[in-house]
Amino acid sequence: MATTNVSVDELHAFCLKALRGAGVSQAHSQIVADTLVMTDTWGTFTHGTKLLRDYIKRVRGGGLRTDAEPQVVASGPAWSIVDGGSCLGHVTSTFAMQDAIARAKKSGIAYVGVRNSCHFGAAGYYAWLAAKEGLIGISMANDIPSVAAAGSRRCVTGSNPMAYAVPTGAGDPILLDIAISTVAGGKVYAAYQRGEPIPNNWIIDTEGRPSTDSSLYPANAALAPMANHKGYGIALLIESLSGLLTGASITWQVGSWIWGDAAKPTDHGAAFIAIDVAQIMPPEQFQARVKHLIDEIHQSPAADGVERVLVPHEREWNLRRKALAEGIELPSDVIGKLQGLAQDEKLSAAWLGV
Amino acid sequence: MATTNVSVDELHAFCLKALRGAGVSQAHSQIVADTLVMTDTWGTFTHGTKLLRDYIKRVRGGGLRTDAEPQVVASGPAWSIVDGGSCLGHVTSTFAMQDAIARAKKSGIAYVGVRNSCHFGAAGYYAWLAAKEGLIGISMANDIPSVAAAGSRRCVTGSNPMAYAVPTGAGDPILLDIAISTVAGGKVYAAYQRGEPIPNNWIIDTEGRPSTDSSLYPANAALAPMANHKGYGIALLIESLSGLLTGASITWQVGSWIWGDAAKPTDHGAAFIAIDVAQIMPPEQFQARVKHLIDEIHQSPAADGVERVLVPHEREWNLRRKALAEGIELPSDVIGKLQGLAQDEKLSAAWLGV
Repeated sequence: MATTNVSVDELHAFCLKALRGAGVSQAHSQIVADTLVMTDTWGTFTHGTKLLRDYIKRVRGGGLRTDAEPQVVASGPAWSIVDGGSCLGHVTSTFAMQDAIARAKKSGIAYVGVRNSCHFGAAGYYAWLAAKEGLIGISMANDIPSVAAAGSRRCVTGSNPMAYAVPTGAGDPILLDIAISTVAGGKVYAAYQRGEPIPNNWIIDTEGRPSTDSSLYPANAALAPMANHKGYGIALLIESLSGLLTGASITWQVGSWIWGDAAKPTDHGAAFIAIDVAQIMPPEQFQARVKHLIDEIHQSPAADGVERVLVPHEREWNLRRKALAEGIELPSDVIGKLQGLAQDEKLSAAWLGV
Repeated sequence: MATTNVSVDELHAFCLKALRGAGVSQAHSQIVADTLVMTDTWGTFTHGTKLLRDYIKRVRGGGLRTDAEPQVVASGPAWSIVDGGSCLGHVTSTFAMQDAIARAKKSGIAYVGVRNSCHFGAAGYYAWLAAKEGLIGISMANDIPSVAAAGSRRCVTGSNPMAYAVPTGAGDPILLDIAISTVAGGKVYAAYQRGEPIPNNWIIDTEGRPSTDSSLYPANAALAPMANHKGYGIALLIESLSGLLTGASITWQVGSWIWGDAAKPTDHGAAFIAIDVAQIMPPEQFQARVKHLIDEIHQSPAADGVERVLVPHEREWNLRRKALAEGIELPSDVIGKLQGLAQDEKLSAAWLGV
């Protein structure tokens, strides 16, 4: 696949310019650019700067507000509820995880629930915010239904992403960032474009049966939950903590941030949990224990064709180091989206050819 | 399959007698009998009274202590660490979840980590303890390695069970209780006994490849993690909260509660989180929101051959009502284990034919 190399700084500056131009404050623009560019450095291009064009359409439409700030609207010793005021989801989520971190530093653990938010990009970014301060971070969100339940013939839950990060001292955090569907819809669509069948646990047809026909999705199929009833059950835990308990919209009430009316808030929910390792165990002891686990994983015999068994996100941290040193190789679909954004917003950037 | 009907009370009395006879205190015996019989009423026979014979062997061996009590050994406003003192895992886990509930009622959320515990039966029981008091409960534990990592050719993590329960007011809690392997080892073994091949995502052979050959397990295969890297990643979150942060043994350090030296503690770790709904949202409002979600799930079109889409654990709650009214239909493998226990402990019970 053709890629275009861009430095992290240039990409960040371009995002900042686009956001500022659309009327987003300097502080909010900085947060959104930070999250999207960090996500691209991980090679997680589906959730990085590729999405900025659609976020900004929603800013222009008014569904994402530039004149609001996320606020704590209820709280107790180890919890709070944050109303995002329809700000960009990244802004509200960063605010919420920072609040969870601050409360966890006093109480050991904290839960922050969010309502009136929007798509927040990569869940792992917020989990990482906690890990880089030495806390275990957990993040999750609900979304419009796209995934079947065990035994259903249409979507019941969102793909409800969840992530966690465990600090390791000087090393890279262990980080997992997943959706509860077996695979993302984009993978089904890519197989369809290549004219290929798919494994029988990726989608559920309109009779409620697994199908290997990639052409059914999305009109005539729902994504399958990972591990069937297990993924469905985890989706409902995420819905409970992100949606039910926060006062946010749930399932079919949530607005589509891409396809829905750009003038209306989507009212996504999210949840953030932080656990302060330092209160519970001396950090050096915790780090030694994590190191033992990581070393054990690395020394575990690898499968045929696998160089070594990796810790979750190890590949992505290595990609980030490479990106910081040598620039990010943006795939052509991301470049296309950024060029479209440049056109919408009348921006120019030599590296983008516009 | 042949089954034997026994009333809940008779089964509970038999368990109590066996435990008391082996020197377990009345209070501890009551807790263990409660958890095992409740689990059987759910139809979750793999984790109910079937296991009592092996627990009592370990009590007789001294690896499970009858002269100790679980204790809080470190704590802060919203967390504690409990040392189980090698008591029966059910006793320590019940103590720990009760501590989490008490702390969550003050702080909104609480984390209780456990070390020096043992196999705790069904994780869902402890999550339910929270839900029956109106809190959201989450429970999890580590175990000896039996599940491959993504890209490994042997076991790396335990099957690391996790459960959650969400209260619904007067209705049954939403409850999920899963292990992070695609299926339990018992399902692979059952396929082998029937001479059947298995789906290609159940086990990983010694080259690190998926296999459909059920005869390979357990000597020449590891269980596959659910959804591959997703289940592997979740296993490490459970290991982090149950093992790393609690000071318990992790992965290969954990003792096998069935096969290991019955004189030695297994030092399993576990973790319990409780979230007090009532502090965060008026319970009636929360219950109305949960009801909306459950109604929506029930009204969702069901797959061919499925009566209706169920909420997690709905089937098990219905089985429990039936069991309370009509007795439990214990499968023959459970009866065999209980007869063995009766023989070991010189107990008689008419319904058991001993």
